[in-house]
Amino acid sequence: MDAEIFNKVLKDKVDEIENIISGYLPAEEGPASHLYEAMNYSVTAGGKRLRPMMVMEAYKMFAGEGFPIIPEAVTAAMTAIECIHTYSLVHDDLPAMDNDEYRRGRLTTWKVYGDAMGVLAGDGLLNYAFEILTKAIRNEFDKKDYQTAERLTKASEVLASKAGSFGMIGGQTADLEAEGKGSEVKLEELIYIHEHKTACLIQAALMMGAVLGGANEAQLSAIERCGYNVGIAFQIQDDILDVIGSTEELGKKVGSDAANDKVTYVTLKGLEQSQKDVEDLSREAESILSEIEGDHEFLDILVMSLVTRRK
Amino acid sequence: MDAEIFNKVLKDKVDEIENIISGYLPAEEGPASHLYEAMNYSVTAGGKRLRPMMVMEAYKMFAGEGFPIIPEAVTAAMTAIECIHTYSLVHDDLPAMDNDEYRRGRLTTWKVYGDAMGVLAGDGLLNYAFEILTKAIRNEFDKKDYQTAERLTKASEVLASKAGSFGMIGGQTADLEAEGKGSEVKLEELIYIHEHKTACLIQAALMMGAVLGGANEAQLSAIERCGYNVGIAFQIQDDILDVIGSTEELGKKVGSDAANDKVTYVTLKGLEQSQKDVEDLSREAESILSEIEGDHEFLDILVMSLVTRRK
Repeated sequence: MDAEIFNKVLKDKVDEIENIISGYLPAEEGPASHLYEAMNYSVTAGGKRLRPMMVMEAYKMFAGEGFPIIPEAVTAAMTAIECIHTYSLVHDDLPAMDNDEYRRGRLTTWKVYGDAMGVLAGDGLLNYAFEILTKAIRNEFDKKDYQTAERLTKASEVLASKAGSFGMIGGQTADLEAEGKGSEVKLEELIYIHEHKTACLIQAALMMGAVLGGANEAQLSAIERCGYNVGIAFQIQDDILDVIGSTEELGKKVGSDAANDKVTYVTLKGLEQSQKDVEDLSREAESILSEIEGDHEFLDILVMSLVTRRK
Repeated sequence: MDAEIFNKVLKDKVDEIENIISGYLPAEEGPASHLYEAMNYSVTAGGKRLRPMMVMEAYKMFAGEGFPIIPEAVTAAMTAIECIHTYSLVHDDLPAMDNDEYRRGRLTTWKVYGDAMGVLAGDGLLNYAFEILTKAIRNEFDKKDYQTAERLTKASEVLASKAGSFGMIGGQTADLEAEGKGSEVKLEELIYIHEHKTACLIQAALMMGAVLGGANEAQLSAIERCGYNVGIAFQIQDDILDVIGSTEELGKKVGSDAANDKVTYVTLKGLEQSQKDVEDLSREAESILSEIEGDHEFLDILVMSLVTRRK
């Protein structure tokens, strides 16, 4: 698959995912209509839809051919993880957190709807993720499909665990506390932050798709390690681009981390070693995928496009 | 059961519940230890433990005698609903919301740990509720206890739905927007707020216990109506106490709602009609409970103590 075809396929998949997600969004009516507006504004703000895409691709890889229609359990998992990712951005942007007014070229949720609604819309999306999932599990029980009910329960447990206080929220906490430490942040703290703040939700995406597609325990562990490698490589690449990328491509001032006296992977391990680590992590991720029987051509290219990106 | 015995039994139950909940709390260690501290500080701040108590009592009422040890599915549900209730208070107290510095005589979570940690600790607790529940459902699958897995899934769905954007968070949104409207708030808006902000989580507590105890659909609907009545009566009684209660008993300035030009049930329907409505709602709640075969003596008195309280 060459780059042009990949981009075309990628765009079609993003459209398909956005169509799936929009089917789950609340109607903007009733006394709390502004809450639903704020939730929908946040979810429809664009983005790469990387996490639901990974759920879908990992599912297809394990479930095999013959699934042209994505089952409800999978669409529920795709929408739930995007709700989790979105709420984390909405709360991150709050004045109490990063105080960001723009994201992806649009005003942030709190900037449009006010701080209080920013808190509530984030809460609403976090809760909604599990509302979608528990309802979908119950639907499988209603159909007496205990296998799918069990798989979706495991997928929900993965999401809750990877997104929660021992996962993503733990990483946000460590990141917050590292800000006050300046140049005293150590490599193991930085890796903890990268793993928890970023890699955990990528692991969750791949693992949710895998478990729904019927992966066994050993395959699930392999996929978890793959997600770790992709997430960490992605973040190291971010730090590398801050040093070598062009301002134009990256859309932020190059060298801004260094100017802020911020510890990054590159300041701790040097540029050359950082680039080598990205290569090693990516190669291991690819090697894990290559050992799985199903079709993973698109997932391979997607992973490579993330860790070798120039912006 | 006279008042003295009731209070003794109540205290024992609160101790039992706090013991159960503390078994689920995270250890305060690792790079995100301050997050776990903030979460635990919030959950251990006291309170009536009304919602987990209602889960437990409703469960016992339907499950019948012979359950001296509360099963894990029930303790998971009890802890999860208390996490949800607690996170809603932590976020409500934030500067972006009510900006409260004290709750139950202690500094609020954000006041001790900072605003950013207030946001994250609330998120952590909301997520943790579903982490506990999804893990407990998966445990039932591991034991091949599909009946309990299904019941706990239904209980989780009830919680997600009653706590979410069509439930409690919807009520918080409507309450937030009513603040700006002053005396123009109408009775139906006020009832929407009372129902969603307060009654929904009381309904969830009773319904979760009922479904775990084996209630059928008709009984579950009856229990839902009972929870509605209790929740609304509780809130009307709050408005009544603001007018007639003594400052000493209530712990806040009496008449503060009226002084703030705030619309309440009493300003809209008058004191006499409000008192009659509390009586009618309570009587219907009692009548619903009386039709259920199991032991509901304690639950009856608990409900009555809430709607006839003087402070």
